Amino acid sequence: MRKYTTELVGTYFLVLTIGLAVTTMNALAPLAIGGILMVMVYAGGHISGAHFNPAVTLAVLIRGRIGRADAGGYLVAQVIGGLAGALTSRLVLHDTKPVELSLSGREIWMALLVEALFTFALAYVVLNVATSRSHPDNSFYGLAIGGTVMVGAVTVGGISGAAFNPAVAIGGATIGLLAWSAIWIHLLAQAIGATLAATAFLALSEDDREHVRHR
Amino acid sequence: MRKYTTELVGTYFLVLTIGLAVTTMNALAPLAIGGILMVMVYAGGHISGAHFNPAVTLAVLIRGRIGRADAGGYLVAQVIGGLAGALTSRLVLHDTKPVELSLSGREIWMALLVEALFTFALAYVVLNVATSRSHPDNSFYGLAIGGTVMVGAVTVGGISGAAFNPAVAIGGATIGLLAWSAIWIHLLAQAIGATLAATAFLALSEDDREHVRHR
Amino acid sequence: MRKYTTELVGTYFLVLTIGLAVTTMNALAPLAIGGILMVMVYAGGHISGAHFNPAVTLAVLIRGRIGRADAGGYLVAQVIGGLAGALTSRLVLHDTKPVELSLSGREIWMALLVEALFTFALAYVVLNVATSRSHPDNSFYGLAIGGTVMVGAVTVGGISGAAFNPAVAIGGATIGLLAWSAIWIHLLAQAIGATLAATAFLALSEDDREHVRHR
Amino acid sequence: MRKYTTELVGTYFLVLTIGLAVTTMNALAPLAIGGILMVMVYAGGHISGAHFNPAVTLAVLIRGRIGRADAGGYLVAQVIGGLAGALTSRLVLHDTKPVELSLSGREIWMALLVEALFTFALAYVVLNVATSRSHPDNSFYGLAIGGTVMVGAVTVGGISGAAFNPAVAIGGATIGLLAWSAIWIHLLAQAIGATLAATAFLALSEDDREHVRHR
Repeated sequence: MRKYTTELVGTYFLVLTIGLAVTTMNALAPLAIGGILMVMVYAGGHISGAHFNPAVTLAVLIRGRIGRADAGGYLVAQVIGGLAGALTSRLVLHDTKPVELSLSGREIWMALLVEALFTFALAYVVLNVATSRSHPDNSFYGLAIGGTVMVGAVTVGGISGAAFNPAVAIGGATIGLLAWSAIWIHLLAQAIGATLAATAFLALSEDDREHVRHR
Repeated sequence: MRKYTTELVGTYFLVLTIGLAVTTMNALAPLAIGGILMVMVYAGGHISGAHFNPAVTLAVLIRGRIGRADAGGYLVAQVIGGLAGALTSRLVLHDTKPVELSLSGREIWMALLVEALFTFALAYVVLNVATSRSHPDNSFYGLAIGGTVMVGAVTVGGISGAAFNPAVAIGGATIGLLAWSAIWIHLLAQAIGATLAATAFLALSEDDREHVRHR
Repeated sequence: MRKYTTELVGTYFLVLTIGLAVTTMNALAPLAIGGILMVMVYAGGHISGAHFNPAVTLAVLIRGRIGRADAGGYLVAQVIGGLAGALTSRLVLHDTKPVELSLSGREIWMALLVEALFTFALAYVVLNVATSRSHPDNSFYGLAIGGTVMVGAVTVGGISGAAFNPAVAIGGATIGLLAWSAIWIHLLAQAIGATLAATAFLALSEDDREHVRHR
Repeated sequence: MRKYTTELVGTYFLVLTIGLAVTTMNALAPLAIGGILMVMVYAGGHISGAHFNPAVTLAVLIRGRIGRADAGGYLVAQVIGGLAGALTSRLVLHDTKPVELSLSGREIWMALLVEALFTFALAYVVLNVATSRSHPDNSFYGLAIGGTVMVGAVTVGGISGAAFNPAVAIGGATIGLLAWSAIWIHLLAQAIGATLAATAFLALSEDDREHVRHR
């Protein structure tokens, strides 16, 4: 329960920050979004591993560092946290109508592509900096994970909304930043990106792959 | 006395930076504010623990890492440092009239809410990165603590003034950024946020809670 | 093959990020570019050393930390990754025509100068933070390497395009940000800068030089 | 000689970055300036201690970590590096006339005050993060030192030019960003700030003071 609560708290602040910063179109929004993920990862990593993202939990499941039952608990906590963050953002900014990202035709496929690519990058970074046996006590894991989302928010925010995270996609649709009718794009792309990242990690990190096999 | 002086110096530069950057409405003000807290935490952490914030001192008191008498000394040093920083900022920018955040009706409750939420986040991050036994010699604590305030300044600066710190609230009112008549909002919200964060920390960090109980 | 794949993935995301952020003229592009290099260095460093840049591979070759055959493999992987990133960027932004940096007369020599200077800085930083025996398990190497490219992108982006990396120069020409006719400027300057940096490192780091000599 | 060359290289890139970013009035100039200092500190710290600043060398001299003769060599290297960086910046941007900071009457005293305050902050941070025995192998020293200059550049760049460094002040006057007639303001303020910081450090860090006394 301590792990699930930590996941809920971190995802809550992630989606709250996205809601507040993106709805008001703050010029520094990508820094705030990458920043809140970074600080919540540093705060919660020692308790739950600090996923705050069902796509990351999926990648960690494939990589063999979390069990199926626990992954289900993480997913529920993340979605509840994300929804609560979205509702808080709407409550606070009830006078400000967010601009909903509108996608049609070719834009849909490009959104799918960049969501898959940056979800791959995020899960690939998480697995390498936070689950590899090469640098067990490093101090950079939160900076690397938050930094990846900052980069994605700057570069593809206008193309896909830059969610890279099903809890953020659901929260974003609740806030009104993404269309519910287009949420399949995010969920599909994120599942593909996370699965490919876990596959790539296991192929590239020989030692860690052995570890999974023999236990 | 060394600890109190360190608290005074850190809080002085925090409020001075806020005064100079916010009064002149600098576009990078959130980075400067989070940045000065980060560097002062790295500089002063080994002497005083680097609170620079009565709300953080309250959370550390509840968590059991500082005594009541010492906490009182920290509070006095922080308020004096904050007032001195505010007066220096006014002296330097005496020709520039700051824009006072004006709150009425519903805005008051929203300011209370976001101040409590981000003070919770700040104290939750501080307790986890700087007082947990899970990562005793990490190098990320200042980045995480400063990063949390940067995120809050970006996201809720326009809603509550983004103080998350009674010494900053008093300094901000002295500078003219916040109204003295509304300072109860900040002090109340910050006390609530810090208390909840300490409670959450003790509930979520089983090992550290035992440590408090049995000593 | 694991090393080459890691180099390909990192260079792919570096050039993809440059293509997306610079073509759309994003105000935070330098932070995204330095940021993606930082996170890919943290993710891939433990596998390949995380060069993502033939100029860095050249400097590491002169410094004696990689063999000639392996360096050739790195180069091929980096160029393929860069080209793939460039093509992905063009695919995603096919409606947005990038602004090609145009150089003539004196501008050519200034571009050559600043590319050589910042490629020197980048390779000098890489060799000192990632290959010196003075701080073997530091957590700052990715921040320092990504930070150097961020600084170069801010300061000389308008003068030379701020590539500091042959794979980025080739990718940038593929995207349409740099002219193919001017690519010799980048390749020549980057070779000079990397060679001088390796020479300076060996001269300045006595211990590490001995290490190269006697093995 | 290795130490002096390292000081020259670091100060060269610091002043070159300031010249290029400030002359062109880049919106992200404070991040580039703090960033180049950060990366040069990480690159050169293990060789020379990475002062790149006569005011820092003065503080380290008072603190007892460098000898008088060596400090003189550092000063010469820093000024030569700064002048070379300034001349390179002028060469590259010879068509762009920089805006010279103009100070008169009350402004002079306010510039003196903020230069002394932020030079104090810089030297106080350097002494605590890079010369204290409390955290000998930390990975944050470059981030803290570069971060302090970033904060100062954001907050007081328009008041004093934000040099905090005699080599930068001389370089800035060479570039045309500061008036030669006002350079005494910077040199005086920086000497005061550095001296006070070293005094404060020795008073606040009991263990380190003993270390100075008894050797």
